[in-house]
Amino acid sequence: MITVAIIGNGNVATHLHNAFLKAKNVEVIQVNSRKLENIPETDVTIIAISDDAIAEVSAKINNSFVVHTSGSFALKDLKNNTRKGVFYMLQSFSKDKKIDFSLVPFCLEATNKKDYIVLEKLAKSIGHKIYKINSEQRKKLHVAAVFVNNFTNHLYKIGNDICQENNIPFDILQPLINETSEKIKELSPKQAQTGPAIRNDRKTIKNHLALLDKQQKKIYKILTKSIKKSSNKLN
Amino acid sequence: MITVAIIGNGNVATHLHNAFLKAKNVEVIQVNSRKLENIPETDVTIIAISDDAIAEVSAKINNSFVVHTSGSFALKDLKNNTRKGVFYMLQSFSKDKKIDFSLVPFCLEATNKKDYIVLEKLAKSIGHKIYKINSEQRKKLHVAAVFVNNFTNHLYKIGNDICQENNIPFDILQPLINETSEKIKELSPKQAQTGPAIRNDRKTIKNHLALLDKQQKKIYKILTKSIKKSSNKLN
Repeated sequence: MITVAIIGNGNVATHLHNAFLKAKNVEVIQVNSRKLENIPETDVTIIAISDDAIAEVSAKINNSFVVHTSGSFALKDLKNNTRKGVFYMLQSFSKDKKIDFSLVPFCLEATNKKDYIVLEKLAKSIGHKIYKINSEQRKKLHVAAVFVNNFTNHLYKIGNDICQENNIPFDILQPLINETSEKIKELSPKQAQTGPAIRNDRKTIKNHLALLDKQQKKIYKILTKSIKKSSNKLN
Repeated sequence: MITVAIIGNGNVATHLHNAFLKAKNVEVIQVNSRKLENIPETDVTIIAISDDAIAEVSAKINNSFVVHTSGSFALKDLKNNTRKGVFYMLQSFSKDKKIDFSLVPFCLEATNKKDYIVLEKLAKSIGHKIYKINSEQRKKLHVAAVFVNNFTNHLYKIGNDICQENNIPFDILQPLINETSEKIKELSPKQAQTGPAIRNDRKTIKNHLALLDKQQKKIYKILTKSIKKSSNKLN
């Protein structure tokens, strides 16, 4: 049995609490971060609150093993005087959307092997994709996630804008969007690259630029340049 | 029964030929574009060759109804002296990858209603997502596809590069990539936007920029700026 206290009331805290409630061998309570005086001692205390508040809240906790769930907060910046760790789930959590934890990558970090094994057991109680990721790697992973999630979504928005302006239903692009994300399960993104930039098809690039607004043009140019450049590199 | 001749030997021609062979009520032959003297008269003659060769090949065809399969070639630029049309499938075709035509959007265009109905019947014999798209719209759609397919794939490549440099397995990002592409089936891309740019979280943006190389930094900055700008607009 692993006993867990989750500090926080946001999406991550709530989804995690619900998942642990269903797990065998885990006993869990959820605690409001404004009522820290009420935390019982547990095997793992998970701070699942916004980055800005982690330092302050962790400073007030005396429990023996305190971990946070942030992608960009270093382990060493936890301010508790006891053992530290990280229990980061690389997934976006929305209030109303159910999370399938079996698909969620758990990125774990601890300062000693015994603590790491406890986090691993805890992650395995609700999921099965477990990665050992240190604070330096996690920072990089977080920025990589911005590219493949936030920025990709913005490219979808540009696609949507172009469709709307031309009375084309956006769902016409959905199969292509799906295929693009599926393809890289079999090919590396470098192998999967297609289009006028990688073919250096200047005529098509010129025609495309003529159809775009100023902001779209800038994005088109810089991404085309970057695709061309990376095709000249070995990796 | 619709009779069809497909001109070309590339991926599109071959996949289309195989699909029509299995369709009820379609009789199809495939013709090498260097042997145009051998095309029998058919209800629809489909030129499925590279954009650069469409004008030249279409000029040599006397069949009564000639269509091409290109995303960026205007209907009026076909050089046959008979009826013209477009039979464009918005999907990327690879040699070894089977195509599920039931998922493929067919973008159809013809100069008269009767011809359009023939193309619609033909598309329905192998698929069911049919869109009436004129040449102007198709040009725009083609550039929108570059954003959601080619450019998105390049963002995946940047994510992959960051992972590789830091000894992180790229598959850790796959669930997030999937979720990003799935989410816009329910939300508009504007509603689905998350991350430091839309939150105007300057601290995180600054931290991220410090982790990137020159080219990545440029892309990060311009996409962040574009996300911020578009969040101020109404649509």
